[in-house]
Amino acid sequence: MSRVLRMLHPVEEAVRLLLKSSFNPSVEEVPLEESVGRIAAEAVRSPQDVPPWDRSVLDGYAARWVDVAAASEDSPVRLRVVARIPVDASDPGSIQPGEAAEVATGSPIPRGADVVIPVEYTREEGGVVEIHRGFAAGYGVSVKGEDLKKGEVVIERGDLIREYHIGVLASLGVARIRVYKKPRAVVLNIGDEVVEVGKPLRPGQVYNSTGLLVASWLRSRGVKVEKVKVLPDDYQVIKREILDNLELVDFVFTTGGTSVGKKDLTVRVVNELADDMIHGLALTPGRPGGVALIGGKPVVMLSGMPVAAFSELVAVFDEFYRARLGRRDPWEPVVPAKLRRKYASHPGFMNVVRSLACKGPNGLEVEPLRVTGSGVLSTLIKANSFFVVPADVTGYEEGETIEVRLTGQRIPGCRG
Amino acid sequence: MSRVLRMLHPVEEAVRLLLKSSFNPSVEEVPLEESVGRIAAEAVRSPQDVPPWDRSVLDGYAARWVDVAAASEDSPVRLRVVARIPVDASDPGSIQPGEAAEVATGSPIPRGADVVIPVEYTREEGGVVEIHRGFAAGYGVSVKGEDLKKGEVVIERGDLIREYHIGVLASLGVARIRVYKKPRAVVLNIGDEVVEVGKPLRPGQVYNSTGLLVASWLRSRGVKVEKVKVLPDDYQVIKREILDNLELVDFVFTTGGTSVGKKDLTVRVVNELADDMIHGLALTPGRPGGVALIGGKPVVMLSGMPVAAFSELVAVFDEFYRARLGRRDPWEPVVPAKLRRKYASHPGFMNVVRSLACKGPNGLEVEPLRVTGSGVLSTLIKANSFFVVPADVTGYEEGETIEVRLTGQRIPGCRG
Repeated sequence: MSRVLRMLHPVEEAVRLLLKSSFNPSVEEVPLEESVGRIAAEAVRSPQDVPPWDRSVLDGYAARWVDVAAASEDSPVRLRVVARIPVDASDPGSIQPGEAAEVATGSPIPRGADVVIPVEYTREEGGVVEIHRGFAAGYGVSVKGEDLKKGEVVIERGDLIREYHIGVLASLGVARIRVYKKPRAVVLNIGDEVVEVGKPLRPGQVYNSTGLLVASWLRSRGVKVEKVKVLPDDYQVIKREILDNLELVDFVFTTGGTSVGKKDLTVRVVNELADDMIHGLALTPGRPGGVALIGGKPVVMLSGMPVAAFSELVAVFDEFYRARLGRRDPWEPVVPAKLRRKYASHPGFMNVVRSLACKGPNGLEVEPLRVTGSGVLSTLIKANSFFVVPADVTGYEEGETIEVRLTGQRIPGCRG
Repeated sequence: MSRVLRMLHPVEEAVRLLLKSSFNPSVEEVPLEESVGRIAAEAVRSPQDVPPWDRSVLDGYAARWVDVAAASEDSPVRLRVVARIPVDASDPGSIQPGEAAEVATGSPIPRGADVVIPVEYTREEGGVVEIHRGFAAGYGVSVKGEDLKKGEVVIERGDLIREYHIGVLASLGVARIRVYKKPRAVVLNIGDEVVEVGKPLRPGQVYNSTGLLVASWLRSRGVKVEKVKVLPDDYQVIKREILDNLELVDFVFTTGGTSVGKKDLTVRVVNELADDMIHGLALTPGRPGGVALIGGKPVVMLSGMPVAAFSELVAVFDEFYRARLGRRDPWEPVVPAKLRRKYASHPGFMNVVRSLACKGPNGLEVEPLRVTGSGVLSTLIKANSFFVVPADVTGYEEGETIEVRLTGQRIPGCRG
């Protein structure tokens, strides 16, 4: 239908409109311990070589490999213990042929030594240590800079900081880290039929699941959601709430009231207020979505249906948001998987397809979940992944390897 | 060396010892909105069919499929509009052949109708709607119970609650959810050489990276870490801190002081206090690890080296912790991947191998990272995954499909 195609906008156009907004995340410095789950505002590079000197990774005896390579229980090697090197030694000294130095985990290695024999394979008596086993050259020694070279990138701008980063940053002495200040958002859920969770439900009413999904999705990606609020289908109320909240936050999200039905007021209100607006996306699910700038600030109009709202968040808002954070990758791990059955795309539309990834005998496989409408909510939890089909791709064949984004932790074995 | 093998315990034995502890997580109820990142203390089942009745998933006209299947732009079908059904209608009525009812997104579907034509493909004038395109039977209709059947499990005990669960639970009207109360832990980092991050570092000293890594790892899995504290190599201080903290928390973690070197006091202190203790694990990295019960409470002795401590957390503590939460799956998605080169395991030891998963042309591939010692810290961030080789497996061949646990979000393309 030419009429329909005319009114729909490619997803990229909506992203470009948001990129014209005035939003830029501010930066704050937080203690390293509090930075897990925050987003790095700049790359952090190693200020030094790690380790800063050759050091032992175990308790034992540092020796020359040529002296001890042939040691065995039956023919142990005996070395003279010339030093005991504490972990806080500023100069470990050196050893000569036939000599060893006792070291602890972390001790600097004396010059001349190139192997550390674990203490369990030794016996010391009267200043002489007996070595009961040979080890490869370099065993037990961590050489200067082998872990991290000075200047090497430890965390990139836009990275979500995780426990693993903390371990590395702490060892470099990074006590504080510059992260993006959480942008603030409000989620307005529009519709006379929308009821807050926990209240009684009358026929035709629905709980505000989309509002809570959107808020949780945003919070998991570092956005501070100040408020989740249900609004009636009332032009003036919607207008006032959007204007009032825009003063206080960085983003306004609306859900509902974006279709072309009679009571769909959100689009009319936003249209009145917006500097620029796009409504109707070549996206499935998520056709009723839209974006606007009001006073330069992003307003994201999401569908009332949770799964469609999820699709709009992923396809539009997240692309803009990650670009602003300088983040290249999606939040979810993106992995290749073999498609278990043909997927025919809605032509001309970007498709966001919830899917079930499973462990096949030769690798990961993935099955698009059958859905009949954007209201199919259970796919949010029955799916453990999704994939995105660009608008100019008509679909994928069975057996094709595609990239899927893992949203769940549970990957079952493949059936059949 | 028979002497070494005698002193090492299979990892499973350490897990079994912890399972004898008195720890059992308590349960609390929290508002749904605050439950993201918490762990479900019981399964939640759908209290009703979703949707509770057949309803429209779009704005348009409900009709009988046989009437409209053949509609096209060139030969539109005309139907009499007999009703306008609001989303809050308690009875949608019915339609007869040749009739349609206008519906909005969420409206109940009248009896007799089995398709909803999107409003964009219609034109209404004078009580008659013109349908410009046919759709498959069932299009636009979400049938009762198709999303969730009454009694269907929405979230399982031990599940980490995520934004996707929130969307579904909210739609079911679940306003509060029973989650495990966060167990409390203290992390004591033992060693004269250990310095708090941010202070100046003298030769032989190391920052307390292991302490912060362990604390962040625990926090990301729902443990409340009350304190991360550096202790000197002082028998009485260590003893007092362990005893004092055990009164206040559920778990005590120590790092360092677990090797067999001269200054290794942790093991001696714990040995004096423990009802039961295992020290020395058939685990690589992580051989110096151990576990104990003191007054029935778990004490987990971790290596001073961060990567070894990580391995001990994963192989021992996490197995116990997940068992107590009733959680079957690891925290990370477990996916199959093709091994890019042979991996020879440390025989008789469980191996925890940091690895780099990458996107190959036919699916996910994985490469174990080369390391020379447990102090190799950068693998925590250079790796995006790890895999576990049981003690009775000698290794894996190149090209073999193994299961890897994804810890990172960035999966690069495979090189070479």
